[in-house]
Amino acid sequence: MAGKLERGLIQVYTGNGKGKSTASFGLAIRAVGRGLQVRIIQFLKTGIDYGEIETFKRLEPELKVISFGRKGFISRTGVTEHDYQLCREAFDLAKKIVEEGETDLLILDEINTALYFKLLDLEEVLSFLKNKPYNLELVLTGRYAIQEIIDMADLVTEMKEIKHPFAKGIKARKGIEY
Amino acid sequence: MAGKLERGLIQVYTGNGKGKSTASFGLAIRAVGRGLQVRIIQFLKTGIDYGEIETFKRLEPELKVISFGRKGFISRTGVTEHDYQLCREAFDLAKKIVEEGETDLLILDEINTALYFKLLDLEEVLSFLKNKPYNLELVLTGRYAIQEIIDMADLVTEMKEIKHPFAKGIKARKGIEY
Repeated sequence: MAGKLERGLIQVYTGNGKGKSTASFGLAIRAVGRGLQVRIIQFLKTGIDYGEIETFKRLEPELKVISFGRKGFISRTGVTEHDYQLCREAFDLAKKIVEEGETDLLILDEINTALYFKLLDLEEVLSFLKNKPYNLELVLTGRYAIQEIIDMADLVTEMKEIKHPFAKGIKARKGIEY
Repeated sequence: MAGKLERGLIQVYTGNGKGKSTASFGLAIRAVGRGLQVRIIQFLKTGIDYGEIETFKRLEPELKVISFGRKGFISRTGVTEHDYQLCREAFDLAKKIVEEGETDLLILDEINTALYFKLLDLEEVLSFLKNKPYNLELVLTGRYAIQEIIDMADLVTEMKEIKHPFAKGIKARKGIEY
């Protein structure tokens, strides 16, 4: 049963530093601890081979994650029809979840990246944000948040990379980076 | 059983924006999903009336959180002997956990703030960081990270406030901010 938040806002976590998606996952577990219903929709992520996915299963049914992505990284030159379709499906699910009205916190992980790559219709997303239910909290993550999204958000944090071990040649580590 | 990380690093999440502690909690659940042992020590936090604490209980025994703090906010002019004592106890526990060698990821939540308020001996903390086991991941959160800590870290993200609803007069909300 939703509606436990008196007022829901729009939060954005963006920037080139580590901690955007993990901050949203931290929010998710805080909300679950308060009995809120949380849904995480992942754009451009397969949901395969991420440590957090295993833990999320232990927090069902209050928390559910649904991932839409293909293997491999996306680039501006390498966008395929399949990428559009997956983002379309992810966004349609977001709309369905909001219509159902059972969710208190909806996290749209990496949606900023999908918007940056023009894999979603910006006007449609802005309209979705503008018309969100009053007591629904929306969290949008991903680097490259575009200005229109930042303008519409109530809370924006830029995760700024000051130092990163990848720069020293250290590769992504299981359990820490994924 | 620890030792599942091939190489552990030192991560710092600092800055004036929202998402520092929650990013570390997101890391915690990722690590738990990979079977890593996680301990969270909270400086300057009571551990009472935070949503995440309830969820952490569902992730025991792989994850445990221990909080050291008194009620009320701390300020440079309002530091008490009790604050020193609590920070001392928290740091002693951190050392004990490292000595025991069972933990893969150790999060020292708000330690940056404790250092900024000079509630811990900087040289002792730097020595602790310098001598950490090779496969232990250490995460330090809190605004005001001091330069010596940043210098020693492998990964530093500054959470920069771009917009915050508190500025609009919206108060902290249960399930979202705490």
